[in-house]
Amino acid sequence: MADTRVERDCLGEMEIPNDRYYGIQTTRMLGVSGAAGLPIVFYPDIFRAMARIKKAAARANAEAGALDPEIADAIVKAADRTLDGSFDKEFPLDFWQGGGYTCLNMNVNEVIGNLANEILTGHKGQDRVHPNTHVNMGQSTNDTIPSATHLAMIPRIDALRSELCDLEAAFEKKAEQFKEVVKVGRTCWQDALPLTLGQEFSGYASALRRLIRKLEHVRPECLQIVMGGTAVGTGLSTAPGYQEAFYRFISEDYGEEIQPMENLFDGFQNSDTVVTVSGVVKEIACTLAKFAKDLRIMSSGPRAGFMEIELPALSPGSSIMPGKINPTVPEMVVQIAHQVIGNDVAISVALYDGELDLNVWDATFYKCLFESFSLVEREVTIFRRDCVESITANRSRCMEEAAASIALSTIVATCYGYPTGVKVAQYAADRGCKVQDAVVELGLMTKEEADTLVNPILMTDPERIDAAAAEFKRRHANVKKA
Amino acid sequence: MADTRVERDCLGEMEIPNDRYYGIQTTRMLGVSGAAGLPIVFYPDIFRAMARIKKAAARANAEAGALDPEIADAIVKAADRTLDGSFDKEFPLDFWQGGGYTCLNMNVNEVIGNLANEILTGHKGQDRVHPNTHVNMGQSTNDTIPSATHLAMIPRIDALRSELCDLEAAFEKKAEQFKEVVKVGRTCWQDALPLTLGQEFSGYASALRRLIRKLEHVRPECLQIVMGGTAVGTGLSTAPGYQEAFYRFISEDYGEEIQPMENLFDGFQNSDTVVTVSGVVKEIACTLAKFAKDLRIMSSGPRAGFMEIELPALSPGSSIMPGKINPTVPEMVVQIAHQVIGNDVAISVALYDGELDLNVWDATFYKCLFESFSLVEREVTIFRRDCVESITANRSRCMEEAAASIALSTIVATCYGYPTGVKVAQYAADRGCKVQDAVVELGLMTKEEADTLVNPILMTDPERIDAAAAEFKRRHANVKKA
Amino acid sequence: MADTRVERDCLGEMEIPNDRYYGIQTTRMLGVSGAAGLPIVFYPDIFRAMARIKKAAARANAEAGALDPEIADAIVKAADRTLDGSFDKEFPLDFWQGGGYTCLNMNVNEVIGNLANEILTGHKGQDRVHPNTHVNMGQSTNDTIPSATHLAMIPRIDALRSELCDLEAAFEKKAEQFKEVVKVGRTCWQDALPLTLGQEFSGYASALRRLIRKLEHVRPECLQIVMGGTAVGTGLSTAPGYQEAFYRFISEDYGEEIQPMENLFDGFQNSDTVVTVSGVVKEIACTLAKFAKDLRIMSSGPRAGFMEIELPALSPGSSIMPGKINPTVPEMVVQIAHQVIGNDVAISVALYDGELDLNVWDATFYKCLFESFSLVEREVTIFRRDCVESITANRSRCMEEAAASIALSTIVATCYGYPTGVKVAQYAADRGCKVQDAVVELGLMTKEEADTLVNPILMTDPERIDAAAAEFKRRHANVKKA
Amino acid sequence: MADTRVERDCLGEMEIPNDRYYGIQTTRMLGVSGAAGLPIVFYPDIFRAMARIKKAAARANAEAGALDPEIADAIVKAADRTLDGSFDKEFPLDFWQGGGYTCLNMNVNEVIGNLANEILTGHKGQDRVHPNTHVNMGQSTNDTIPSATHLAMIPRIDALRSELCDLEAAFEKKAEQFKEVVKVGRTCWQDALPLTLGQEFSGYASALRRLIRKLEHVRPECLQIVMGGTAVGTGLSTAPGYQEAFYRFISEDYGEEIQPMENLFDGFQNSDTVVTVSGVVKEIACTLAKFAKDLRIMSSGPRAGFMEIELPALSPGSSIMPGKINPTVPEMVVQIAHQVIGNDVAISVALYDGELDLNVWDATFYKCLFESFSLVEREVTIFRRDCVESITANRSRCMEEAAASIALSTIVATCYGYPTGVKVAQYAADRGCKVQDAVVELGLMTKEEADTLVNPILMTDPERIDAAAAEFKRRHANVKKA
Repeated sequence: MADTRVERDCLGEMEIPNDRYYGIQTTRMLGVSGAAGLPIVFYPDIFRAMARIKKAAARANAEAGALDPEIADAIVKAADRTLDGSFDKEFPLDFWQGGGYTCLNMNVNEVIGNLANEILTGHKGQDRVHPNTHVNMGQSTNDTIPSATHLAMIPRIDALRSELCDLEAAFEKKAEQFKEVVKVGRTCWQDALPLTLGQEFSGYASALRRLIRKLEHVRPECLQIVMGGTAVGTGLSTAPGYQEAFYRFISEDYGEEIQPMENLFDGFQNSDTVVTVSGVVKEIACTLAKFAKDLRIMSSGPRAGFMEIELPALSPGSSIMPGKINPTVPEMVVQIAHQVIGNDVAISVALYDGELDLNVWDATFYKCLFESFSLVEREVTIFRRDCVESITANRSRCMEEAAASIALSTIVATCYGYPTGVKVAQYAADRGCKVQDAVVELGLMTKEEADTLVNPILMTDPERIDAAAAEFKRRHANVKKA
Repeated sequence: MADTRVERDCLGEMEIPNDRYYGIQTTRMLGVSGAAGLPIVFYPDIFRAMARIKKAAARANAEAGALDPEIADAIVKAADRTLDGSFDKEFPLDFWQGGGYTCLNMNVNEVIGNLANEILTGHKGQDRVHPNTHVNMGQSTNDTIPSATHLAMIPRIDALRSELCDLEAAFEKKAEQFKEVVKVGRTCWQDALPLTLGQEFSGYASALRRLIRKLEHVRPECLQIVMGGTAVGTGLSTAPGYQEAFYRFISEDYGEEIQPMENLFDGFQNSDTVVTVSGVVKEIACTLAKFAKDLRIMSSGPRAGFMEIELPALSPGSSIMPGKINPTVPEMVVQIAHQVIGNDVAISVALYDGELDLNVWDATFYKCLFESFSLVEREVTIFRRDCVESITANRSRCMEEAAASIALSTIVATCYGYPTGVKVAQYAADRGCKVQDAVVELGLMTKEEADTLVNPILMTDPERIDAAAAEFKRRHANVKKA
Repeated sequence: MADTRVERDCLGEMEIPNDRYYGIQTTRMLGVSGAAGLPIVFYPDIFRAMARIKKAAARANAEAGALDPEIADAIVKAADRTLDGSFDKEFPLDFWQGGGYTCLNMNVNEVIGNLANEILTGHKGQDRVHPNTHVNMGQSTNDTIPSATHLAMIPRIDALRSELCDLEAAFEKKAEQFKEVVKVGRTCWQDALPLTLGQEFSGYASALRRLIRKLEHVRPECLQIVMGGTAVGTGLSTAPGYQEAFYRFISEDYGEEIQPMENLFDGFQNSDTVVTVSGVVKEIACTLAKFAKDLRIMSSGPRAGFMEIELPALSPGSSIMPGKINPTVPEMVVQIAHQVIGNDVAISVALYDGELDLNVWDATFYKCLFESFSLVEREVTIFRRDCVESITANRSRCMEEAAASIALSTIVATCYGYPTGVKVAQYAADRGCKVQDAVVELGLMTKEEADTLVNPILMTDPERIDAAAAEFKRRHANVKKA
Repeated sequence: MADTRVERDCLGEMEIPNDRYYGIQTTRMLGVSGAAGLPIVFYPDIFRAMARIKKAAARANAEAGALDPEIADAIVKAADRTLDGSFDKEFPLDFWQGGGYTCLNMNVNEVIGNLANEILTGHKGQDRVHPNTHVNMGQSTNDTIPSATHLAMIPRIDALRSELCDLEAAFEKKAEQFKEVVKVGRTCWQDALPLTLGQEFSGYASALRRLIRKLEHVRPECLQIVMGGTAVGTGLSTAPGYQEAFYRFISEDYGEEIQPMENLFDGFQNSDTVVTVSGVVKEIACTLAKFAKDLRIMSSGPRAGFMEIELPALSPGSSIMPGKINPTVPEMVVQIAHQVIGNDVAISVALYDGELDLNVWDATFYKCLFESFSLVEREVTIFRRDCVESITANRSRCMEEAAASIALSTIVATCYGYPTGVKVAQYAADRGCKVQDAVVELGLMTKEEADTLVNPILMTDPERIDAAAAEFKRRHANVKKA
């Protein structure tokens, strides 16, 4: 077998090393590619989705009588062979490409085309299966790439959802475990009313449930694609019957219903689904960063911080200070949020910059969104496994702080009105005493009443404390009247 | 009556001009306020929402037996009086305030408190109605402000939705009007297959319908609030029965069901609803900018541009070049997208930067989101009224360009395979002739066939052209066989 | 005098209320304006700069023999009268305008034109002084607006610089005042080596000095403008001699040298000076936010935080919790950074989106940059006056934490190698004792040596501690040898 | 030799495969690393800079008498061996790491330590050279990482500068080549006054010169580092004499003066140099995107666009439309700007989020900045080589459009005042004629005068046209008077 084969396209012909499945157009762009130094297949989802699109299109074209069933069959087989990643080295093009990723579509057409040609003839080449005429039949880059981007999001959403569910469960478990660890609440970093560490963690779990719902909500949008629109949305060059058959076959392949967007012109022009999905990923990344920062500050110390919780020690935290341990995982989570916020800006600008009959900023959409997806998905695993699941609480420290808080005077304000509350707060601040003592010293409550009402534990249970306060007010009102 | 009255708070006392309804705490912050040089009431929705919250809280406290019904009634009346904007000068504080907008909550408490005191006693003051003890009863800044921010979004979402519906109708009308204006499609700014101007505009209308749906989808999230959580989510200091009654009264006032969030700790910690809403507003602003840029480029000229459409002339477009007219409204739309993208970043950073038991970055959330809301809402009106509704098409110019496009050779590729399509395209490019002529000169189609198939008008109608192409292929296949 | 006058432009004529100095073009745009609900003159610097440009242009045109000196003189007088703000109501147009702010240039031309006409004839109108022919002579919106934007930055840079110098002095004063307050350092929120509060504050002052230098560095770029380029950079329609004279007069007026950019085509196309300046303002805002967050966390408490410093109490910090005080000013500073980061994005996108012969996104550049300028300038005053200048330190608390830090074991690592340092750290951690005691108990140092070397105060003075450690090592090396 | 060796740190001990040069701490973090799926050494500059820092530190410690000269020598040799990339597989940690990149510093300490130990003893291990005690002597992660980040920027700035100079030269060459290609100017996408294509390209070259100057301006800031500050800026644990010697050795190694920052506490706290550099890279990326978009629109067509220039055809531009060629390289340039804008946001947030005695967001700073650097550096090569250098102009098309422009009526306004200019513009617009004909038909100029003055070529040469207009005005004034 010759070491090279000759391929041609509208710009001329070229010798291609015969061990390569990609062809002339991929080779051309390889020569001008490489700004990232990283092939797109680093995030392979789009290639998988394209292969499945090519399969469904071949079947649909065969059914519509436009494509020789033997060729269709070879294309299906060829596409299947690329799905397990064993041909990934045949997709060498860089993330940053223009032309609406035409080169990427042609890369797939060429690899599948040469594979199919080989299946049918024993050799690579375009003599039996042509990348444009057959593999790309009834399709255009302009409907294939946005559709593949949508479908590529499905496995990422599912994987992220699954990781988030595990993290939610981990927080829920901690919430249960910490449900009696009373601590001082903090707003504006200032001591506020007490709550339990469990209540705080229940908030984390609750936020994750909401974010999971948001992710679930955007998923169906990704199942709406623009296949059948070909070059500008009109569908020129599709065989009669192709479009209906395509959606039937692709839905069958994915095992769920995939539909054309309501208006394909709109679908070509506007890529806001990517922005919506990026927005949810950003909310997740930012919320995780908030949790991570909370864990960092609550574990600050070991002697001059909040010291309310302890995170697992993963590695020495200093090259110079012996014994220092850093909250490295939470800090990774914080930084990933920076990147995801930045990627979301990039994606938003790419939406804003859409133009006429096609938004061609596929590289921005794909690289930035899938980098964000990948970072968040993997960080959730690490965050759960190497941080959250092993958090322990410093119960006595927490209780001590809660009991000392001047904000406990709120219960006085509830019982006697705000001005009396202020009086107590000032008394406690001036003397450095506890509110529990101040109310007794000021004659506002008996020792027993103070023990019951100025009680951080009770204060974390609104039903009990509010009833107790109401009862106190009632009793005192009667006393006053009497 | 004295010119001043004396008010006191936990930091001391102060003489307040007696013609002011706001009191000591507002006055204190007024002294350190003013970074924006603009009072928050410039976007008054939050003040309206707070007044309605104060009303519902007063009723609920009265029903729970915690508040003298006479005082509750005065608070309700006072709150009502602020709703029409006639007390807006009593809300002088600047947008940029810290402390989780405590000063803003106190400003409302003070204005309503003094008004209510006046209603009951004939004079302002705290002798009968106290801003903290009574107006703020069972509430905290920490539940009031986030709740008011949520409720404040409702009228903005509704107004924006209504404007977008009108714009969608305007585009739909144009789509109908332009449905037979055939023009060249453009992808990557290069001539592509033809479509109709109507099809392009139908894409605009379709995108708006999707964005409206996204807006509708986020609306219910804004009806979930955190009232009843008071300072840290535990609900300390609320009277038994208050919370249930509060939600009943506030729902009654709004005429729709308003509910507590599933987990109030979560609601205090995380403000992602604001980010989600901002994201939708951003998608709208970016999509409008895309439309605006399309209109600009399609109306470029008058002699050296695309000249496919004409926008209404609103004002002279140059101080030096006579007769020049600029697409000023589309350009305003483009620039507002810049601001909205920027505000979305600000809001995202504020979410990311949440901390412990309360996200306190209310100023960022409120100013940035409501600026975006306001800009987008108003621009939609202007865009529709002063631009979209008066667009006219340059029918003959459009047709001319469509007919000249080399991309029409796609139909040859459909009928004969891609390589033959390339041959035709090169022939047309080299000779500067039309594809319609090239196919005849190359003997690929008869004149009649070319008139039917290489026909931009037909090409915009996929069903007809694809059937015609299939028929052509069938016929030629038979000929070949025969 | 009639109530209205008739004015005309290339689109027709219109009756203008005679008490208005602005004319037909301003009136036209007023009808389609208002997306922000705020007139541009809210940040009046651009109007002041434009008036000064009009003055210099009139003088230059007169000198070049192109303009009747009497008219030139009237224009100069008219322009001067607008400089003190007394005509601000004549500039009613909204921030968000397209057309490269043509309407804004015409607004100025009309107001100055009518004023000049009135000066010469006693009535408003275009009979003697025409807004385009005379006031705008030799100019275009396209050179005037970018030039005015550049010049408008000068007073803002100067004012911000001055405020920053005051803040730097305030921090420097605190650095001096706190130079002996030894405290624990913190990296990754974990206890680290000690330093003094004064050293931390000296870092703040130093950062400000660097930021001031950056501001000073960008200032000269703002003195490079594009006047003389007229519509597209070629300078068509300027009288021979005009350009040279213009730069002479405008430099004279500003009292410093103002120059044309090296290549006016470049100046028209690219607005990166605005981005550079915005970048510096952003660095300032972000750095101030960093300081503000430090102050918040260091003042957290009053009983369950770091409690190292105290900020002045400006107002009650809670509507429900008596006695709570919030760090409101630092929080304002943090939030303003969100907005400034967002505005910087908007401005960057507007640079990116430049096109062909003119970047027309003036509204984005002006509104976003001058909002950022204004916010940062004013916040610096507030931050200094209402926060920094009144900070006090909690000396004993700081010392206590410093002395307890396990990171003091670093000195052991220095003297004995890292593994021995680790041993000491673990010993201290396990027993809950101080490093100072651990080294003695482990026999590594005598009590006297420990007092000298494991001494947080000494550790903040590198020269002394490093010399002491070197001496210790020498002595012990000798002992070993011996 | 055993397959594994045992290493220990403050958390315990671990068996390390003996073929690995990295040790226990790297191995620990490898277990929790991997969010990006990409090792940091993908951008190796920081590792190179760190190796050079380790060399200089070893020399300085030896000179200061703190380190055995033999060990110092081995460290220097070991560090040198890592500089050519042959040990890159020994740096397996992922980009996204917390802890201020402590793991990264330890990774370098371990690799160099084991190499040095091997040099001295023939085996890996800590028996002779300890990663903390010796390789890291007098250093901390906290001074090493920010310093290495600064020094790592130097080769990137130099490489980018060099590429930009080449691109500037390419544009300058095109400016010369196109200096007589007269075309219509466009502002707000509307036909404006004529200029030459060469003038437009001269603007591109000029902008690049300014951006190169900005890059040159920030370079010296990167030569200011924080070595000698160790853990918190105080410099604890450095040997007397070490710091001075360190700066001498590192400067010698780099061949240029490297200095400590003015205030090391500031240097630890604030990373604004990274933000400044990122800002310049962003300005470059945005400006390149502006050029790229200009080239795209000027080359739009081939039959229904502007068709003023042609870009080289690199590959077929469609999988379906034969003969279509896309501006793929300019589109790559546009998209890279999206990413760089996004990365700049990430970096800005990381500055904003600095805290107390060290900004620990090194992962964000490094990954985002060096990704931007890498993308922009490589895109400049591609843009120049595969696009700019091969641009050709469509001279006749350009001239045709220039001559047809209604904006040529500006010369009439110059000669006769703006209202007469408007009259001519309207006449030309109404009749569809040229301005050159309109002025004659309206009796404003003779045919000869019109040929001279209403001449797009002359209009691109301000000196000549403005003199001609002045002469015309003078002549007509005399005629009028006479």
